[in-house]
Amino acid sequence: MTYCVGISVREGLVMIADTRTNAGIDNIATFRKLHVFEEPGERVLAVCTSGNLSVSQAVLDHIQEGLENSDTGAVDTLMSMPSMFKAAQLIGRAIRQVYATDGRSLEEHNSRFDVAFLFGGQIKGGKMRLFMIYSAGNFIEVTADTPYLQIGEHKYGKPILDRAVNYETEMPDALKVGLISMDSTMRSNLGVGMPIDILTVRRDALKSEISHRIEPGEPYFHDLRERWSAALRAAHIAIPRPPYIIGKTGVLDTP
Amino acid sequence: MTYCVGISVREGLVMIADTRTNAGIDNIATFRKLHVFEEPGERVLAVCTSGNLSVSQAVLDHIQEGLENSDTGAVDTLMSMPSMFKAAQLIGRAIRQVYATDGRSLEEHNSRFDVAFLFGGQIKGGKMRLFMIYSAGNFIEVTADTPYLQIGEHKYGKPILDRAVNYETEMPDALKVGLISMDSTMRSNLGVGMPIDILTVRRDALKSEISHRIEPGEPYFHDLRERWSAALRAAHIAIPRPPYIIGKTGVLDTP
Repeated sequence: MTYCVGISVREGLVMIADTRTNAGIDNIATFRKLHVFEEPGERVLAVCTSGNLSVSQAVLDHIQEGLENSDTGAVDTLMSMPSMFKAAQLIGRAIRQVYATDGRSLEEHNSRFDVAFLFGGQIKGGKMRLFMIYSAGNFIEVTADTPYLQIGEHKYGKPILDRAVNYETEMPDALKVGLISMDSTMRSNLGVGMPIDILTVRRDALKSEISHRIEPGEPYFHDLRERWSAALRAAHIAIPRPPYIIGKTGVLDTP
Repeated sequence: MTYCVGISVREGLVMIADTRTNAGIDNIATFRKLHVFEEPGERVLAVCTSGNLSVSQAVLDHIQEGLENSDTGAVDTLMSMPSMFKAAQLIGRAIRQVYATDGRSLEEHNSRFDVAFLFGGQIKGGKMRLFMIYSAGNFIEVTADTPYLQIGEHKYGKPILDRAVNYETEMPDALKVGLISMDSTMRSNLGVGMPIDILTVRRDALKSEISHRIEPGEPYFHDLRERWSAALRAAHIAIPRPPYIIGKTGVLDTP
């Protein structure tokens, strides 16, 4: 399993990914899922991957080695694309290329061709953008109304994002809430696990700001997890008990 | 969609169910999913249902009208079963009966035979028990290690249960946490909605304690939702911002 979240706020972009892969529950490994492609001052691009690891790795190979463009004859790579839109299309083309090569064989072996990508960043002369790209190679973009996108095990970590992140959230807070979202996911799904890779990019900076791997036992993240647990316990304890009267169906104890 | 949760603590049983059904997103209706079968002093039984409504309603008909028992020749009903185990088996048999009647036809029309039940309560002379019964008619029982079971849209409401409920939790608190779990689910999945039916049963009381429908706008539940939201906001705001130093990969700002 996997959990990755991308948050796009006014100040910039936050991307967070776990690193656990599992082929069944008895074959657990650590693979990087947050990949950064950077030429400071020119472009900074980040790709988070989920789904079948052989598919996502093949897609990453294609977008780095290049795919021939049948219209222009050129070989397109992630670093040569002139815009975020064109770069997202390139990833979509790479997914379709891998499907053409491997899709049928995977299905014959009862393995699903399922993959999803978050793709965020900025190319000089264009706007910062954040996309989610599906198995079919199509994609959607984040908006100010819903400033985050998730791939993988998205449900456990969604409620805190819905409550605590909006487009005006400052980047350090967006990162913090993203880490709480990751914590909630890790607690409920053993297929999502440490270490955690994080990336922040300020709008128009054209270079990464924070690029960091949170290892197990790191003091800040450990403290965040403890504080969040303690706060949730305190929160539900502070709520009054239900006032429903025993034995009186549908009657309340309060006016 | 549906969300139902059953919690079995030392003091007794709590069951909570939403009432929303949807055939697609444009056909929403309200149906009771928490059904109570009670003969005070003799037995109190509760069934929560999820999945295909035609299947779950047919199962409820079977266990009330009775299924012939090929071993004894008797007609078994939920009110005639001598133990919780036998009663859970009866529900399993009813599910298999409906599958035998409708399963193939449903599949021919691309409708899945999917259904799940929570079944809890106590019969005089036996212990209070809580089961989850699957589409195949097999079932599992709650334990003191994991004192709750969920059916339907279970992920959004699971983290608070994991953090806040154990076998020693007092019943009013178990009900409160169950309602917070329902709130989290309703906020993230529009297919789960008000009103909410709740039931509590004290161990060995052999009758229901609280049997109540929470309607939209009811003051206590409204207040619980507001307080929980406010507490979550306060909780993440109280956590310090991440200390990762800008531009220094892998370096922390704190010792």
